[in-house]
Amino acid sequence: MNAKQLAAEQAVTHLEHDMIVGLGTGTTAYHAIQGIAARVKEGLRIRTVASSKQSEELAQQLGIPTVPFASIDGIDLTIDGADEVDESLHLIKGGGGALLREKILASNSAKLIIIVDESKLVRKLGQFPLPVEITPFAYELTMKQVRSLGCNPVLRVAEGKTFVTDNGNFILDCAFGVIDHPAELSVKLLAIPGVAEHGLFVNMADTVIIGSSEGTVRYLQR
Amino acid sequence: MNAKQLAAEQAVTHLEHDMIVGLGTGTTAYHAIQGIAARVKEGLRIRTVASSKQSEELAQQLGIPTVPFASIDGIDLTIDGADEVDESLHLIKGGGGALLREKILASNSAKLIIIVDESKLVRKLGQFPLPVEITPFAYELTMKQVRSLGCNPVLRVAEGKTFVTDNGNFILDCAFGVIDHPAELSVKLLAIPGVAEHGLFVNMADTVIIGSSEGTVRYLQR
Repeated sequence: MNAKQLAAEQAVTHLEHDMIVGLGTGTTAYHAIQGIAARVKEGLRIRTVASSKQSEELAQQLGIPTVPFASIDGIDLTIDGADEVDESLHLIKGGGGALLREKILASNSAKLIIIVDESKLVRKLGQFPLPVEITPFAYELTMKQVRSLGCNPVLRVAEGKTFVTDNGNFILDCAFGVIDHPAELSVKLLAIPGVAEHGLFVNMADTVIIGSSEGTVRYLQR
Repeated sequence: MNAKQLAAEQAVTHLEHDMIVGLGTGTTAYHAIQGIAARVKEGLRIRTVASSKQSEELAQQLGIPTVPFASIDGIDLTIDGADEVDESLHLIKGGGGALLREKILASNSAKLIIIVDESKLVRKLGQFPLPVEITPFAYELTMKQVRSLGCNPVLRVAEGKTFVTDNGNFILDCAFGVIDHPAELSVKLLAIPGVAEHGLFVNMADTVIIGSSEGTVRYLQR
């Protein structure tokens, strides 16, 4: 069993009957959804909402009940991955491009559990380039404003074309170097019209579960 | 000549050769574009960028040169309307639904001139419901978070359907009552994942030109 799988197995022990559960997106969330499916098969009674079409379809294939957002008031627990985690449980997410939807789920969740392997743990955020989701309209000007905050934004490209998110937006990958004050950077980025969202998750994670390749699991708790 | 036309005529006297000019959207901006066209016919040499397809097409029909955003570094002067203006030159915009693009133009403009008729002038913002542009994904949860800031958000409907902006988003019309601290409300709204932008333009307008039905024009200057 790999490190992510190990962490995912731990995460799903926190599920309880009648919870509304948020499903993340990406390779780590994939392991979590597999673990959730196993618990549902054992008889766990939950409903889920997904942060992507991809995770929703996977859940449905595995027999996990999914419900529309209109039918819920909030989310009890979301389990998701991250690209970087610091010692204060602040995160960088968005390597896969689903940051906006993942952040909507996270911010509407009573509890957010993040599962990672040990390679994602850093003392301070910023080695992983921060994904910033921007509206395509006049994106050249928005890019210039993001650059003025102290990075060299790179417009994300996939298969030779500008990458487009589920929300029809573009992604700038922004290497800021060490991010000493993530909360401040968050406010500055959000103040730029044209920035739809960014991958800094500040004070959102309640628990980080870190799986190691040696088969051990460690908890960070807020 | 009506009050808006009068204000628009004043605004276009601020245009100078070689300026990059931002074009607003809506009935007031319509008058401004007419005024700009008249000056271009007289020989004024400018280039323009537009905040909507509609304004871009109008400009082109009237012989105003329009250029793509990729060809400019910034905007010298944007002329636009507003739904409400207070004594500190803070604005509410977005009645027509173009707030995000209008704000991108405004924030990239060295100078923003707002033209209104006297009915738009208020002591404090908030009589006009604040438009908040939100991503459609899980909008029910986003609406709940906006509500928790102290308003009763109404999802905008047009012709019997949910109104969709140029950016593929929805609009919430949010009657907050008197907005005592627009800068604070702005930060709170932007911190909600799912909020793409809102109609508060705080410290953005440099000049407000107010036309009256009696044929007089008044300036507010920052």
